[in-house]
Amino acid sequence: MRIDLNCDFGESFGIYRLGEEKEILQYVTSVNVACGFHAGDPLVMRKTVQMALERKVAIGAHPGFPDLLGFGRRNIAVTPEEAYAYVVYQIGALAAFVKAEGGTMSHVKPHGALYNMAAKDAALAEAIAKAVYDVDPALILYGLAGSELIRAGKKFGLRTANEVFADRTYQSDGSLTPRSDPRALIVDEQEAVQQVLTMVKEKRVRSLQGIEVPIEAETVCIHGDGKKAVLFAKRLYEALRQEGVGVCSIN
Amino acid sequence: MRIDLNCDFGESFGIYRLGEEKEILQYVTSVNVACGFHAGDPLVMRKTVQMALERKVAIGAHPGFPDLLGFGRRNIAVTPEEAYAYVVYQIGALAAFVKAEGGTMSHVKPHGALYNMAAKDAALAEAIAKAVYDVDPALILYGLAGSELIRAGKKFGLRTANEVFADRTYQSDGSLTPRSDPRALIVDEQEAVQQVLTMVKEKRVRSLQGIEVPIEAETVCIHGDGKKAVLFAKRLYEALRQEGVGVCSIN
Amino acid sequence: MRIDLNCDFGESFGIYRLGEEKEILQYVTSVNVACGFHAGDPLVMRKTVQMALERKVAIGAHPGFPDLLGFGRRNIAVTPEEAYAYVVYQIGALAAFVKAEGGTMSHVKPHGALYNMAAKDAALAEAIAKAVYDVDPALILYGLAGSELIRAGKKFGLRTANEVFADRTYQSDGSLTPRSDPRALIVDEQEAVQQVLTMVKEKRVRSLQGIEVPIEAETVCIHGDGKKAVLFAKRLYEALRQEGVGVCSIN
Amino acid sequence: MRIDLNCDFGESFGIYRLGEEKEILQYVTSVNVACGFHAGDPLVMRKTVQMALERKVAIGAHPGFPDLLGFGRRNIAVTPEEAYAYVVYQIGALAAFVKAEGGTMSHVKPHGALYNMAAKDAALAEAIAKAVYDVDPALILYGLAGSELIRAGKKFGLRTANEVFADRTYQSDGSLTPRSDPRALIVDEQEAVQQVLTMVKEKRVRSLQGIEVPIEAETVCIHGDGKKAVLFAKRLYEALRQEGVGVCSIN
Repeated sequence: MRIDLNCDFGESFGIYRLGEEKEILQYVTSVNVACGFHAGDPLVMRKTVQMALERKVAIGAHPGFPDLLGFGRRNIAVTPEEAYAYVVYQIGALAAFVKAEGGTMSHVKPHGALYNMAAKDAALAEAIAKAVYDVDPALILYGLAGSELIRAGKKFGLRTANEVFADRTYQSDGSLTPRSDPRALIVDEQEAVQQVLTMVKEKRVRSLQGIEVPIEAETVCIHGDGKKAVLFAKRLYEALRQEGVGVCSIN
Repeated sequence: MRIDLNCDFGESFGIYRLGEEKEILQYVTSVNVACGFHAGDPLVMRKTVQMALERKVAIGAHPGFPDLLGFGRRNIAVTPEEAYAYVVYQIGALAAFVKAEGGTMSHVKPHGALYNMAAKDAALAEAIAKAVYDVDPALILYGLAGSELIRAGKKFGLRTANEVFADRTYQSDGSLTPRSDPRALIVDEQEAVQQVLTMVKEKRVRSLQGIEVPIEAETVCIHGDGKKAVLFAKRLYEALRQEGVGVCSIN
Repeated sequence: MRIDLNCDFGESFGIYRLGEEKEILQYVTSVNVACGFHAGDPLVMRKTVQMALERKVAIGAHPGFPDLLGFGRRNIAVTPEEAYAYVVYQIGALAAFVKAEGGTMSHVKPHGALYNMAAKDAALAEAIAKAVYDVDPALILYGLAGSELIRAGKKFGLRTANEVFADRTYQSDGSLTPRSDPRALIVDEQEAVQQVLTMVKEKRVRSLQGIEVPIEAETVCIHGDGKKAVLFAKRLYEALRQEGVGVCSIN
Repeated sequence: MRIDLNCDFGESFGIYRLGEEKEILQYVTSVNVACGFHAGDPLVMRKTVQMALERKVAIGAHPGFPDLLGFGRRNIAVTPEEAYAYVVYQIGALAAFVKAEGGTMSHVKPHGALYNMAAKDAALAEAIAKAVYDVDPALILYGLAGSELIRAGKKFGLRTANEVFADRTYQSDGSLTPRSDPRALIVDEQEAVQQVLTMVKEKRVRSLQGIEVPIEAETVCIHGDGKKAVLFAKRLYEALRQEGVGVCSIN
């Protein structure tokens, strides 16, 4: 039994700082680096890649919508062609920094609204998967567990990583409870840790409706902003190790 | 005797179109593709790369300042670290499209104000050359003939291409006459063609002051906007061939 | 009987040019000036306002989504609060240029996806109407004839202008046939002119389904790009005058 | 004797937060609100204006270069025409929020590189002053004490406010010591307070070279980021009051 803990990284921009990155790096095994569209800029990308290489965590691209103002969290009605091109562009930009620093890029995880839309929209998901494949077929595609994005990745022959969330509740169809529902978030930390342990060890999650839903957990999304996030990451990391789960990157 | 004819390409953005690219492609041997900072966008980059690959011209990155509003033509007081990161980012973004289309990137030519500033500022020039080298030491660095950028490229062990201009007059120190001078441009086409022929065949250019200045011409910058530009490119191309000069890319 | 002919204006950006503005100005009575979000920039706004004031046409703000890359044509899932703030910002920016040139702003017409979304989404429409009202209650709000935006404008006590289209077909509920439908556009110019004349003189339009739908036409949207657009504008303008319809701005 | 204490405000953007604004508001009498070019966005501008109106401090526009990535701190070689248009645009955008909230805008203070360049470049300074005048001749123009910007404001008949700095050392010609000089900053708080008291009460400042330079101090720039900045603002505010200096806005 093993699991990857991933965290969104490099989301600062210009003089604006975001995330307790140094601290969180102790407890994650892969990072998804923003590529300048929803967050991040060239200087930030370089420093983030350097930091990740020092800590020897897996480095992935974290492409998002060209919407810095909305932090890539707002749905934008892009065509599959646009999504394809946005993803190629952003993977390439990050790949150059990784190469310049002597490292290797391991994966791609779309950000925010692009991630959420690609979880349900097959055409968008395939455009993203094709972009990843066309740039480098060795890249691993991270997507919501059981989503269209995972299916699209497999279709193109990519390795995929089913992502699960510690602090989000699930519906009986395996989807995340929408944030508009007051029960979307798990606020009790112990409960969140337990949900991950159950997903990893028993390959199931208990839905809000009380149903046991089968789920494949290959990587867990760890939030990176706020002191509390660091503490939770530490707690989850330690609980997994105590339970004999190997915490390591996908590669 | 041989010479490369290069042209800035892919400078459209969103719905905005720029350049008579299909026509000019008949007469150039390398194109410098805008990378989304001063011009270009992911969709445009993809189409431009496809078009260049079809025509089998050499493809280079054309990184500029992050100044779409000013088309990258305004000096911005960036640090060498910023310039380095901007160039790495843009080369990477273009490289991904070239790779996705099955091609190979051959060169890098900075754009506009970045090009002009790097011609004189050694620290900036070295930051750019290092960026090119760090991403891919096989890339050829295009720069103003005899400029700091060419020197910086050689310092890092890069192959370089001295660029000359058909329609610009030169000073006795080998620099271009500033555009603020009314004599900066050569408007007579025959004169412009003749200047190129002399630079290529005799490795010299007659300065505004009447001095014969030694100059190395490895690539000529061809402008791409306007019907007149296409006709001039055709004329120069034909004159070079008639004179027995091989018109081919640097590679 | 009278009608306003309006045209989107000032949609150039930086070195990119769009629209045959000088020519079209002869046949329209109001212009909607892009405000720098989906198109336009400060220099372009200033020149556009100067040109409109010279020609004495009514000047309106044309606020859009912050999406230059998509020309404001892509739906973005903004909140009403965001839409409110975007519209206040853009009206204010244009108002300053109008004031600096000694003119008066007459109206506001949302652009592209913002216009289309506000036609159907009551909360978004009210946010836009409130923004217009809060900045200047004397401004006229242009919206799709019979849309939520017109209703929202009336709710806030704004003067409104029902907009109709010459070259688009209508559904039996008074909405425009979506562009995804191959019959969305009227390509025959004579038919397009006739549709406007019927809307203006008989306050009805024949839907694609053959139903006579009542419609109020206070302003007609004239497209501004392409030589053909100029010719059509001329033809419509002349046909309206021949039929005794006064072509003048709303004020 | 009286003095205005001003602070740059509204410099957050999207999800990025900057400044301890609530705390600093207790000790300043005017705020300069970023207008979306170097920082700030429409939602931030609205909330900032609301906060300032609640606290009844004077509200000014804080226009900067279109360079969010560089926070408006990098010199950009704009033309006077561009600077004029950028300033008109930004003043207008802020004015609309102030008007929508029922307030009145009192002043304009250029930001960062635009402020510094306008201190020395007469043509740029006049373009800015003309922009302010053209939008609203009642606005007060803040500029570096004794600078070209102050002179340009007076030339156009604007009211001006000579700005001084508490924590910067001065040269014998009245200019600020460049930041490249290690002695540019006054780190001792008591010394900084004393420099302001001397400037306000005795209309002079002791230069780094030991010369007493005459200076007019109408407003002091207070920094707004960091807990230490809040404490310093409090200390300066209290020292001024103790010395019998009226702390109030220019109006």
